[in-house]
Amino acid sequence: MFKTLEKASRSTRRPAAEVLEKLKLNSDGLIPAIAQQFDSGEVLMMAWMNREALDETLRTGRVCYYSRSRQALWRKGEQSGQVQQLQSLHLDCDGDTILLKVDQTGPACHTGRRSCFYVQIDNDEAVITSDPEIAPETLYGHKDDTK
Amino acid sequence: MFKTLEKASRSTRRPAAEVLEKLKLNSDGLIPAIAQQFDSGEVLMMAWMNREALDETLRTGRVCYYSRSRQALWRKGEQSGQVQQLQSLHLDCDGDTILLKVDQTGPACHTGRRSCFYVQIDNDEAVITSDPEIAPETLYGHKDDTK
Repeated sequence: MFKTLEKASRSTRRPAAEVLEKLKLNSDGLIPAIAQQFDSGEVLMMAWMNREALDETLRTGRVCYYSRSRQALWRKGEQSGQVQQLQSLHLDCDGDTILLKVDQTGPACHTGRRSCFYVQIDNDEAVITSDPEIAPETLYGHKDDTK
Repeated sequence: MFKTLEKASRSTRRPAAEVLEKLKLNSDGLIPAIAQQFDSGEVLMMAWMNREALDETLRTGRVCYYSRSRQALWRKGEQSGQVQQLQSLHLDCDGDTILLKVDQTGPACHTGRRSCFYVQIDNDEAVITSDPEIAPETLYGHKDDTK
């Protein structure tokens, strides 16, 4: 399916169900999903989805991942309130990665920072590039609710 | 290390070597790396790096991945000429994903499209959202040089 779509021109349409059926999940049944703030373009985080999380995300418009540590569906923001509303969902050329354009309420990161990518490698140093917008204790109480 | 950095405030610096040492590679020794065009914010592709590819990327400033299909270092653009110059490199909160801000020459995708994410799920349909900028035959001859 994805090989066929390579040759398809812009605006070609196929039934979504047939395309989603051909997604390449890894041996754990998971596929990486990148979340990007739809208007600013900021990359917020990367997490994993199983087929159920993907279907729920498409059905509800609210992003749901699969937590590998908890081995359960992870409705982003269910504890913290920092939800992701789906704006659009995109698949890559070989069907093994998802790009979610989302509208992120507050911080995406469990540390309270807007984005999870706050450690920059700058020559011989690693530099912290942002501060939390909200203290994690405020987001989660004393529970550690990450992936 | 990454747990400690969660509490660090903006502009905190640590030796890069110590941080990179603690990256969480998967059981194949790989870590996902997202490539984003540094100025437009467009997410171009996701691929994988091993430690050697990461070190080479940091050392040379030209992005090098690890090809899972070829089981070899994959210097992006080595066949097609469509290289990625690294602008900055970022790690996520738990040290298991890399974000590369790059300057992409031409198309990132082996299909000749600018971005690999050209299949959008739009309700019950999958829609092709872009056309190739360069024919893949021009980029690769008749060889299929993908990941």
